[in-house]
Amino acid sequence: MSKPITLYSHGSCAKKGVPSFGIFTDILSLSATGPNPWKVAIILEELNIPYTHKFIKMADMKKAPFEALNPNGRVPAIEDPNTGITLWESGAIIEYLVQTYDTKAALTYTSSPERFYVSQWLHFQMSGQGPYFGQAVWFSKFHEERIPSATKRYLDHIKRVLYVLDKALEGKQWLVGDKCTIADLSFVTWDMMLPFIFGDDLGSLELEKNYPNYFAWNKRLMERPAVKKIAKEKTEAAATHEQ
Amino acid sequence: MSKPITLYSHGSCAKKGVPSFGIFTDILSLSATGPNPWKVAIILEELNIPYTHKFIKMADMKKAPFEALNPNGRVPAIEDPNTGITLWESGAIIEYLVQTYDTKAALTYTSSPERFYVSQWLHFQMSGQGPYFGQAVWFSKFHEERIPSATKRYLDHIKRVLYVLDKALEGKQWLVGDKCTIADLSFVTWDMMLPFIFGDDLGSLELEKNYPNYFAWNKRLMERPAVKKIAKEKTEAAATHEQ
Repeated sequence: MSKPITLYSHGSCAKKGVPSFGIFTDILSLSATGPNPWKVAIILEELNIPYTHKFIKMADMKKAPFEALNPNGRVPAIEDPNTGITLWESGAIIEYLVQTYDTKAALTYTSSPERFYVSQWLHFQMSGQGPYFGQAVWFSKFHEERIPSATKRYLDHIKRVLYVLDKALEGKQWLVGDKCTIADLSFVTWDMMLPFIFGDDLGSLELEKNYPNYFAWNKRLMERPAVKKIAKEKTEAAATHEQ
Repeated sequence: MSKPITLYSHGSCAKKGVPSFGIFTDILSLSATGPNPWKVAIILEELNIPYTHKFIKMADMKKAPFEALNPNGRVPAIEDPNTGITLWESGAIIEYLVQTYDTKAALTYTSSPERFYVSQWLHFQMSGQGPYFGQAVWFSKFHEERIPSATKRYLDHIKRVLYVLDKALEGKQWLVGDKCTIADLSFVTWDMMLPFIFGDDLGSLELEKNYPNYFAWNKRLMERPAVKKIAKEKTEAAATHEQ
């Protein structure tokens, strides 16, 4: 490949003053910027694929010209001039990237059953982690009224996802086989949202004590150079981009 | 292959008296039996793959022995004695089935970009249709209190999914290329839930008028022999199985 892929994310390039939240950067921008485009950025970085990162305002997503690119009016979406493809849905984009550019299967498997287990965890991330963590964000921060029973429903769902991951990681370093794959990496940007979602109650989760396998795994993920780089860029983007 | 795959669904084999709801069968059982295992059953039928269908009570899903099979304690899950694989997450199971048994790519594509578009729509179904339709079911029927603003949020999300599908299907028979694929088929069992979710308000959606491409596509899907067969079996199972 020679030409950079375009990755569409949420944001625009006007500075906005917002409070910061430790290593997880500012609260408002972090939530609105959204974890899914950064999930794709991590895979692009891991595979050393050249890309340019374009930020779209929320108000511009559900109309032309962006809606022609993605009828769902959401980010991430990519355009790859090397193959001519336009694609959306972060799970599908990640699968496209490894199938097209990860020729040595560094982040996935070509063997069976491993490649199906990678797919299983990726689908669990897409359907079981993202949407429920997202609803927890919505009801704890943005819904028009405070509804404790609805907020509790989704905080409980998060604890359940942590429990499932912790159980699956018992005696293991990574979800599938003996290496880090897109299955593991797909979870990390939503996991970065936990301090924002739980706020002052984060400590009550006692992550290290209650979910030790999950905790150690998340730490391993956060220490990877690609994840570190994107976490830093995400922080910077959240601090400088309008929603 | 010679041995039947085991498909795990929700239910048990005790008769339960419940009201019926037109062609969509009984309300309570339909909702609790859940659309996702039947989504897998449709693909098994489409591909003429032998399988046996085991029904698990909700109370037995989140403990041994089922939890050892699926740490997420949910259905569907499959066991395939021909390959020795155990797999969960309906999206991953469907991908496994076509990649393992659909050797002529009847329900998918091996060409690019088509196979990535199939993946895109499958991920949209998994992350954008299932979870939101599911939350609409939860807040309209099962939540501990009635919360109009939460219910409205998810009914609006459903309308948005219908809008996206309708727009994508403009001038087309199927979501990807010129044939019915797992991308199309993956949506149909959740779409069968619309009468349950909207109840008396279903008519106000004016599906045929507001979403004509979606409406015609859903009708095409419902007329396929495999979909018809599973819709009938789902009705019968819902009427005869305890939750």
